[in-house]
Amino acid sequence: MKTVSREQKNIDLRQYMQQVGERARRASREMARAETAAKNSALEAIAADVERSADALAQANRLDLEAGTRAGLDAAMLDRLTLDTRRIAALAQGLREIAALPDPVGEISRLSYRPSGIQVGRMRVPLGVIGIIYESRPNVTGDAAGLCLKSGNAAILRGGSEALHSNQAIAACIHRGLVDAGLPSDAVQVLETADRAAVGELVRMQQYVDVIVPRGGKGLIERISREATIPVIKHLHGVCHVYIDDKADLDKAIRVSFNAKTQRYGTCNTMETLLVARDVAERVLPVLGAMYRDEGVELRGCPATCRILSWAKPATEDDWYEEYLAPILAIRVVAGVDDAIEHIAKYGSQHTDAIVTEDISRARRFLREVDSSSVMVNASTRFADGFEYGLGAEIGISTDKLHARGPVGLEGLTSQKFVVFGDGHIRR
Amino acid sequence: MKTVSREQKNIDLRQYMQQVGERARRASREMARAETAAKNSALEAIAADVERSADALAQANRLDLEAGTRAGLDAAMLDRLTLDTRRIAALAQGLREIAALPDPVGEISRLSYRPSGIQVGRMRVPLGVIGIIYESRPNVTGDAAGLCLKSGNAAILRGGSEALHSNQAIAACIHRGLVDAGLPSDAVQVLETADRAAVGELVRMQQYVDVIVPRGGKGLIERISREATIPVIKHLHGVCHVYIDDKADLDKAIRVSFNAKTQRYGTCNTMETLLVARDVAERVLPVLGAMYRDEGVELRGCPATCRILSWAKPATEDDWYEEYLAPILAIRVVAGVDDAIEHIAKYGSQHTDAIVTEDISRARRFLREVDSSSVMVNASTRFADGFEYGLGAEIGISTDKLHARGPVGLEGLTSQKFVVFGDGHIRR
Repeated sequence: MKTVSREQKNIDLRQYMQQVGERARRASREMARAETAAKNSALEAIAADVERSADALAQANRLDLEAGTRAGLDAAMLDRLTLDTRRIAALAQGLREIAALPDPVGEISRLSYRPSGIQVGRMRVPLGVIGIIYESRPNVTGDAAGLCLKSGNAAILRGGSEALHSNQAIAACIHRGLVDAGLPSDAVQVLETADRAAVGELVRMQQYVDVIVPRGGKGLIERISREATIPVIKHLHGVCHVYIDDKADLDKAIRVSFNAKTQRYGTCNTMETLLVARDVAERVLPVLGAMYRDEGVELRGCPATCRILSWAKPATEDDWYEEYLAPILAIRVVAGVDDAIEHIAKYGSQHTDAIVTEDISRARRFLREVDSSSVMVNASTRFADGFEYGLGAEIGISTDKLHARGPVGLEGLTSQKFVVFGDGHIRR
Repeated sequence: MKTVSREQKNIDLRQYMQQVGERARRASREMARAETAAKNSALEAIAADVERSADALAQANRLDLEAGTRAGLDAAMLDRLTLDTRRIAALAQGLREIAALPDPVGEISRLSYRPSGIQVGRMRVPLGVIGIIYESRPNVTGDAAGLCLKSGNAAILRGGSEALHSNQAIAACIHRGLVDAGLPSDAVQVLETADRAAVGELVRMQQYVDVIVPRGGKGLIERISREATIPVIKHLHGVCHVYIDDKADLDKAIRVSFNAKTQRYGTCNTMETLLVARDVAERVLPVLGAMYRDEGVELRGCPATCRILSWAKPATEDDWYEEYLAPILAIRVVAGVDDAIEHIAKYGSQHTDAIVTEDISRARRFLREVDSSSVMVNASTRFADGFEYGLGAEIGISTDKLHARGPVGLEGLTSQKFVVFGDGHIRR
């Protein structure tokens, strides 16, 4: 085996990444002007190819699973890594759903005449080259590629090293589909290296990459935010709240609060802290508390909560900041809507927060004053999702304030430029 | 005089900046929920106070001008620094115009029912705390404060050290106006230090500042982009093009090209390179060339241009990248629209580019394929401006792709969150 110095490896990696970047930039210009029909036919061709290649995909996946088992990945990680028949079908289905979405590119809006006589409007345009960095689930390769393709962008995808073979096998389907439709195969490049340093290069290639979307745990996202010199659309974490107001319809309050916690535990839009108005705590908490207990949810309460629910553990200050992603719920009794808004401003993560109330003035205040990417009235936080919002697939949920907030779908992968029409008009 | 160690100075500065940040964050929450009437009455009160304080402003400005003269500032810089009666009136007028603009905050759009029964829409919300870093012109203090205030944000302003007294005098008017209207005076803070290190602190206070807007020369903006860990809405430079197509109406072509270069030389939307289709070069260049010559514009041409215009100097490769901001124009003869689009993609700065043509298909291609913040048909590039576009005052022109592209007005200082209405709806 040839020995290669670390230094030489770094030079090779940098050269490789520069080439990837150049190819992506070139492809992005072709993609920006690609017609909707060509993009849709590429998505359909990739979906068909994925289905035809089910055996090859399963075989590649087996290599990753074997390596993962040898490397001691835990059962949850191996499960996420697995590409079974059902997931392969879902991959193809997801691509067809993206094909069915309206093309955002080129839409001209708000075109109107100005006093000078010129017409000014805005045209929706792709961002250019999107770098996506994600962890084990190979299905992300298909979703992310599909969303970038449909929105007229070029994509550079960097999956987890544990899914290298699976991702390359999916990449082969994508490339064949792109070429079938007459689009550049460089429009989607899946990095072929497992070297972690590739991520460091990717997030600094300002001249080739326009935006980075990290998908994964908090550690990954924090590392990328720290290193990136390119804008990052990031989703840090979801400490979501439901506030039960004293003017709430208690049936709705119980239904929403139970669903927001228990419908799924591991998602970022799951409620992590329940806030209850003092005047209804005695009526609502015993019922809800018993439901949570029967469901196996551990409760951590403020002193007032613990007085009402004998089986709740005392919450510590840290609990209010916690994203459990597990059957654990923090509960706090608050004086009213002001107190709830204050609590959310201090401990929340600006992801998704809901109020349950029949009082329209309090609902209006909560909507206006809670500074989160999704703010809800009488609905479960679990609705904060691209599909539920009608955006189609989502590439992530942004907790940033600039550009895109909340679920990021096709539109979040585009921007708007100004278009001006005149008839020889000049500025006086 | 007490000697203070450099280290102690740094600690003091950091403490000062942290306090500024905390105050701004707190004020931003009050501003986000401030009613339109309160914001408008603050703007009117500040305008009136500026007019009443004309003498005090002039006096403070005199201190800056004297110090500037001693420091050897050139005539152009001293002129920009000067706050005369006309500029003081313009400052007040600008604030009243911002008061007259519609309030973008709270606007709910695209509210519609989803199959699940929930209603999903988007609400326009302030960004939070905006840091603005600018150079000598003290009027920017008024404009920037006004735009941030109206859009419900808190602002931290850092003007040039040469305008310190003038900016503090304007800040005093702003604070009185805010307090008059019952709004927190911390909503606009003008840094009281001339220490350059304050900028370095400001652009890294992630927990207190949501976005940085630098206004000034390329050096300032590059430095800030390099140092900032907060998103920057930046405008690097404007290498703007007009392309005269062979299907152009030559009268319009001449009118637009002359205006785009000569209406003002020092602005970022001024044309710097003229591209002319080969088939009309012989007809259009002699007329235009003579007009530019009479106006004192130096011409730097490609070989074909120099053959037609004997007085043009040969352009070097560097000329195509140049933002002259001066009576100099680069001219290149190109084969046609493809060649023009290629030239702009290679040498342009994605600011503003125009085509002059009567051919609708070429106009459509140019609009779609030129990746600039403003793309125009048969209109002068000089129209790329917040007022001309109907945005009201602008805080700058963004050449970024994320968030805001082109002139950034009130809307560019806001973002959208999702709002969801249900009636006890839960996710199945």
